[in-house]
Amino acid sequence: MKNILGREIPEFIEGYGEIAQYKGSWNKKLGKIKKDSSFKVILPGEKKLFKELKKLMDSLELKDGMVVSFHHHLRNGDFVLNMIMREIQERGYKDITLVASSIFPCHKELVLMMEAGIITGIYSAYISGPVAKAISQGKLQKPAVMHTHGGRARIFETGELKIDFAFVAAPSSDEYGNINGVDGKSACGALGYAHTDVEWAETVVVITDNLVSYPNPTIEINQTNIDYVLVVDAIGDPKGIVSGTTQVTKNPIGLKIANLTSKFIAESGYLKDEMSFQTGAGGTSLAVAVEMKDIMKAKGIVGSFASGGITGYIVDMYKEGLFKSIFDVQCFDLEAVKSIKENKAHMTMSASMYANSNNKGCVVNMLDVVILGATEMDTNFNVNVTTGSDGYIMGGSGGHSDTAAGSKCCIIVSQLVNARISVIKDNISTITTPGETVDVLVTEKGIAINPLRKDLIEKFENSSLPIKTIEELKSIADKLIGEPSPIEFEDKIVALVQYRDGTILDIVRKIK
Amino acid sequence: MKNILGREIPEFIEGYGEIAQYKGSWNKKLGKIKKDSSFKVILPGEKKLFKELKKLMDSLELKDGMVVSFHHHLRNGDFVLNMIMREIQERGYKDITLVASSIFPCHKELVLMMEAGIITGIYSAYISGPVAKAISQGKLQKPAVMHTHGGRARIFETGELKIDFAFVAAPSSDEYGNINGVDGKSACGALGYAHTDVEWAETVVVITDNLVSYPNPTIEINQTNIDYVLVVDAIGDPKGIVSGTTQVTKNPIGLKIANLTSKFIAESGYLKDEMSFQTGAGGTSLAVAVEMKDIMKAKGIVGSFASGGITGYIVDMYKEGLFKSIFDVQCFDLEAVKSIKENKAHMTMSASMYANSNNKGCVVNMLDVVILGATEMDTNFNVNVTTGSDGYIMGGSGGHSDTAAGSKCCIIVSQLVNARISVIKDNISTITTPGETVDVLVTEKGIAINPLRKDLIEKFENSSLPIKTIEELKSIADKLIGEPSPIEFEDKIVALVQYRDGTILDIVRKIK
Repeated sequence: MKNILGREIPEFIEGYGEIAQYKGSWNKKLGKIKKDSSFKVILPGEKKLFKELKKLMDSLELKDGMVVSFHHHLRNGDFVLNMIMREIQERGYKDITLVASSIFPCHKELVLMMEAGIITGIYSAYISGPVAKAISQGKLQKPAVMHTHGGRARIFETGELKIDFAFVAAPSSDEYGNINGVDGKSACGALGYAHTDVEWAETVVVITDNLVSYPNPTIEINQTNIDYVLVVDAIGDPKGIVSGTTQVTKNPIGLKIANLTSKFIAESGYLKDEMSFQTGAGGTSLAVAVEMKDIMKAKGIVGSFASGGITGYIVDMYKEGLFKSIFDVQCFDLEAVKSIKENKAHMTMSASMYANSNNKGCVVNMLDVVILGATEMDTNFNVNVTTGSDGYIMGGSGGHSDTAAGSKCCIIVSQLVNARISVIKDNISTITTPGETVDVLVTEKGIAINPLRKDLIEKFENSSLPIKTIEELKSIADKLIGEPSPIEFEDKIVALVQYRDGTILDIVRKIK
Repeated sequence: MKNILGREIPEFIEGYGEIAQYKGSWNKKLGKIKKDSSFKVILPGEKKLFKELKKLMDSLELKDGMVVSFHHHLRNGDFVLNMIMREIQERGYKDITLVASSIFPCHKELVLMMEAGIITGIYSAYISGPVAKAISQGKLQKPAVMHTHGGRARIFETGELKIDFAFVAAPSSDEYGNINGVDGKSACGALGYAHTDVEWAETVVVITDNLVSYPNPTIEINQTNIDYVLVVDAIGDPKGIVSGTTQVTKNPIGLKIANLTSKFIAESGYLKDEMSFQTGAGGTSLAVAVEMKDIMKAKGIVGSFASGGITGYIVDMYKEGLFKSIFDVQCFDLEAVKSIKENKAHMTMSASMYANSNNKGCVVNMLDVVILGATEMDTNFNVNVTTGSDGYIMGGSGGHSDTAAGSKCCIIVSQLVNARISVIKDNISTITTPGETVDVLVTEKGIAINPLRKDLIEKFENSSLPIKTIEELKSIADKLIGEPSPIEFEDKIVALVQYRDGTILDIVRKIK
């Protein structure tokens, strides 16, 4: 059947089950928490500490078909996912469901495990590199479930999926599993995505390369849900953990878009004291932060908070007094890590607090303006950040559709035409974020406001900014470039785009 | 039937149900978490804020037989419990179960509500003043359940009791319910006991007299489980919140006991680097802290952590470098409140993290030495802190039996004879803490080591300290005083002493 966005979604998908169809971004008004588990309590005198990986793995009751989880705060420098999966592979287990909050190029060895039927299912919010490509090539037995950062918490809270073993990389831990991400050689900053794993998994193993004496004097996640603590030589490669790719764009087109965006915000009515703000870590998004800093300083605006994945650019704004606090779910660079240690109002938050729609109000609900990217958009403002223009999986929502749904003004920044491809298409390959939650598209050729936002359209009626309809922007692009050759897909469904409320927004098919 | 401590406990008690008999302090090795609830999610733009108590109460779906919870961090200065219960009374609801982590003399108006059948059940860890007396007089319909601080978390986690409405007094909150206890005119410090209420109640109402702009820059408990925020003029009387009763004893007998205790610890082998330590807020217990400070300084000992309810005496030790961190579940004075704000390693903790045996290791498990009081003891080292020598309820476990069970060395400090009453009796009125978890009794007439601790007895064989058997101490006391006249009780069971694992240790009967 076709869902309300016009996407043809089967009612049942092999390897996933019955499909709950997407029915609108805030259709679910009842939250649900369901848990029923028993566990071995830790008695006084009992130890959690292991110093040998193999001994630890021997003592876990591993089994075929188990669900194992990992967080992605070590990003493309992570050693832990591969380390544990190799051990599982060596022991001959198969049919594993891998629940990794994100998957990066450094995890390429998982492809062989997918081909061998060791890993048959994947849940993730963002997948890039060889694993993403292999999924698009149909190498995973079951369709990958591509959820949102906030939706990941809901999956466990509702009992939709039960984690058997959570493996939690920790830059600092004591022998009882009090952990933080800001100390040690593998410091990565906030541990926002690990909170749910620790809270909901049957068995939780902390893996650290920096054992400190009890009690850890800085605790982001505490001992009460930790079963084991494993000490290893290194949990990651610092160069990959904070990758240094989060730099303001030098591309003049990107800078022009950022400049238009900041002018749009300034005129929109959202630029005022107590405003809250989030921006992604893409080069153009960061350029918006730099522009915003100047405007806020010039106008003497003091915002309430900045949120999200945090970079040094946001820390700078905080230090200059432009925001009173920071809510941080993950750090993108060392400036952000350092700031958590130094600034009390630079607060870490769990992914559930950040973006989960299955609770009594998450931070994105309080967000005024969010700046996000797009690989494709259609004229209904639906956004794709899951698949590339070649149809292959190359990312995923992360917090994209969470922040779009929660914020008062969601602005997509994108080049209209890039490498002879227009961002605006009649049919986009995949819908990651529904258009009803997207308010504005800013490109180098003009700004389009979603017709649903009559208030904004009215506000900009006499603006000197280049306001256009999205159809006008599309025809500008279409004149510059030819018709793109359509991507050919096979029937096999390789991934599901699961909206934050658990409904299925879209499906991704195998590349032909 | 008689339980293993020799107490006669029925197998079924009206108003409570089937009795799980106490079978030893660490008999339960399987933890359990059970939750199945649905709730209204808070959508972007929806408000949680109320400025009128009556309007808030009108909007709650109150009902007869409901379970309402409160925390006791405002201690004898609390306005919130009375404020809410008056509203419930006015609206004519009855058969309420009151779940208040502790109840103080300031809550005396609850007695009339008990007599009128408005409140028919009480769960609490500590009850003093008129409510305690009224329970002993049989004025509560169902037997009061007197649990431990850690056991309170277990009660909700296991589904034994479901809280319909939690009312959480908060010295600082923003409009979305991010709260802390350290800011504002009603600052009380750590909010350790409120965590479980917030996590497990169906509906959570924050009540504050200090609304700050969003987001609160200091968050102990976050917005994700909060349904409503109510602003009132005052949540408490600062004079009663930090009552100033936590002073070192000036009584020379108390000081002598403290001196003997610190000498005992020094010889016991527990006085060493990385030692952990907790002491109650009684005058003699605090005197032990003062003595320990001098000994630790003299010997250059640096402990790992101090825990529990925290006083300025412990903060002083921290500031002098004698402990590397503090785990704080509640503050007893303003020095402790101030220290949380100033010292990063002075950390707040939930009651579950502090003392719950239904998790994967709580802080008391890591405790070396705890100093506790007693109103009565028997020669099996069983301790009563629930009822007084007159048989009336006058306290309760609080963290007494939690810390006794978790710590390596639990030391009871008490005058042997006080006001012509011996602390050691053949039969104590109530067992709060089982003797198998109590290691030492220190009195002004000598020190008794529990025969179960053969290692300690051996260690002190040649000590110059006045080591005696508990029977010897008892006979010294018996010679000084006459036989106490037995307290007469009726059959009616007015309270149950629930051990931290949910079994029933003892019962309290109505005073004749």
